Amino acid sequence: MADNRVFSLPTRVYWEDTDAGGVVYHAQYLAFLERARTEWLRAIGLGQEKLREEHDVVFVVREMQIDFLKPAKLDDLLEVRAELRQCRKASFVFAQSIARDGTVLLTATVRAAAVRASAFNPVAIPDALYRQLKALETPG
Amino acid sequence: MADNRVFSLPTRVYWEDTDAGGVVYHAQYLAFLERARTEWLRAIGLGQEKLREEHDVVFVVREMQIDFLKPAKLDDLLEVRAELRQCRKASFVFAQSIARDGTVLLTATVRAAAVRASAFNPVAIPDALYRQLKALETPG
Amino acid sequence: MADNRVFSLPTRVYWEDTDAGGVVYHAQYLAFLERARTEWLRAIGLGQEKLREEHDVVFVVREMQIDFLKPAKLDDLLEVRAELRQCRKASFVFAQSIARDGTVLLTATVRAAAVRASAFNPVAIPDALYRQLKALETPG
Amino acid sequence: MADNRVFSLPTRVYWEDTDAGGVVYHAQYLAFLERARTEWLRAIGLGQEKLREEHDVVFVVREMQIDFLKPAKLDDLLEVRAELRQCRKASFVFAQSIARDGTVLLTATVRAAAVRASAFNPVAIPDALYRQLKALETPG
Repeated sequence: MADNRVFSLPTRVYWEDTDAGGVVYHAQYLAFLERARTEWLRAIGLGQEKLREEHDVVFVVREMQIDFLKPAKLDDLLEVRAELRQCRKASFVFAQSIARDGTVLLTATVRAAAVRASAFNPVAIPDALYRQLKALETPG
Repeated sequence: MADNRVFSLPTRVYWEDTDAGGVVYHAQYLAFLERARTEWLRAIGLGQEKLREEHDVVFVVREMQIDFLKPAKLDDLLEVRAELRQCRKASFVFAQSIARDGTVLLTATVRAAAVRASAFNPVAIPDALYRQLKALETPG
Repeated sequence: MADNRVFSLPTRVYWEDTDAGGVVYHAQYLAFLERARTEWLRAIGLGQEKLREEHDVVFVVREMQIDFLKPAKLDDLLEVRAELRQCRKASFVFAQSIARDGTVLLTATVRAAAVRASAFNPVAIPDALYRQLKALETPG
Repeated sequence: MADNRVFSLPTRVYWEDTDAGGVVYHAQYLAFLERARTEWLRAIGLGQEKLREEHDVVFVVREMQIDFLKPAKLDDLLEVRAELRQCRKASFVFAQSIARDGTVLLTATVRAAAVRASAFNPVAIPDALYRQLKALETPG
């Protein structure tokens, strides 16, 4: 992760990601965004599988605001970015974007919440993790 | 389409729609929303394939605000709703929701724009279509 | 279900199902086939959710042979068919096809096996269900 | 590409790839296989976008035989392999597999054919490409 705390995941566009309009299917960008959040968590040492097994906690998306600016196409190599904007007691907010060769194609704000894996009711983020995440907030 | 102009598409949840959390994968709700917009257009006599072939126009999603309230599960029968909130010269705004047995699971505001199918640059909605859509606006 | 025991599920092609080649993405046909098997099971009174909860059994695909004959396109209304060819002690074989206006686009043979939902090891199909399925075999 | 001509693409399993059974959704393995074929083509210098634009040719899957041996799970890092078994005048056959830590989870034989991008009718593989592919056949 770079000093500026902007995490970036290179992501290739395959046939599976496209639609008959010749561009990436709009819902697929959300999967790209989620891959970057997952790798961001992995980069700070947080495996979601372990979190689920040890704490019965999973993160679920509660709210998204997405601007689709320009289309991505087959074979494009995208940069999918994630920055932690805010960490609260039971949720956190990411600022994300997708770019190709320096051109921003999409921006998004994503709020994810911690829930019990077994029942999907909200829970507080485990303490140690909360402190770890809190320290990674970027002002925006 | 009912008098109240709320279009609703029954949608079954299959294995393909779910993820390892045991619920519908969050990006898949966007596909459900898009199916309902497509069927809404079909219900007013508008085939997107014809629109593309005759006018070189496709509608693309430009902006979405989504609130994920409760999860849907395998085998659920969902009601995916679409109401046209506003029709502008080159775009329109839908208010959408997904419900199960009367419980709202998700709400969304979706702005779609008309673009040239060949180049993806913005174009005005063809006149006759604009008038037809304008008449279907609901106050919200 | 018709007398001839060929189950058929009408399935509309949406943007999400297509790729940049302008046709249905090849892997998506497998999801269509699975929807038809699911509805076939539902039509004989078998809910997979109940099967999982009561018997800890799920069906998983073990083997497929697929011939992709012609492409399906956006807005196509497909007929996705399923016939039970053989029911064994721990697995069953379906003959399936996808057609549009009487033209067969795809044929497939699918072998699914019963496994413990919790561990994915093979198990025998519960007796009552085995007898019910066995009676529905079609000679092919 | 290694001397033994077995191409291998590391592929991470994300939430989007899984289903409510807690494992990778069976159709998603086909997308993984297709990513590996695409990267195999890219590794020998063949861009599918260029092929489509210059020769109006795309490769489509005509036939698959797939054995699903063991399930992959969230966060798994898979090796998706592709070997060219046979190159014919208008189609080619790949032997493929998916493994995790040396354990084979899936094997597949895939026949893809060259078609006109505009009309989907079969065409011969362009000569120079045919010779290039022919030289890469592995005996199996």
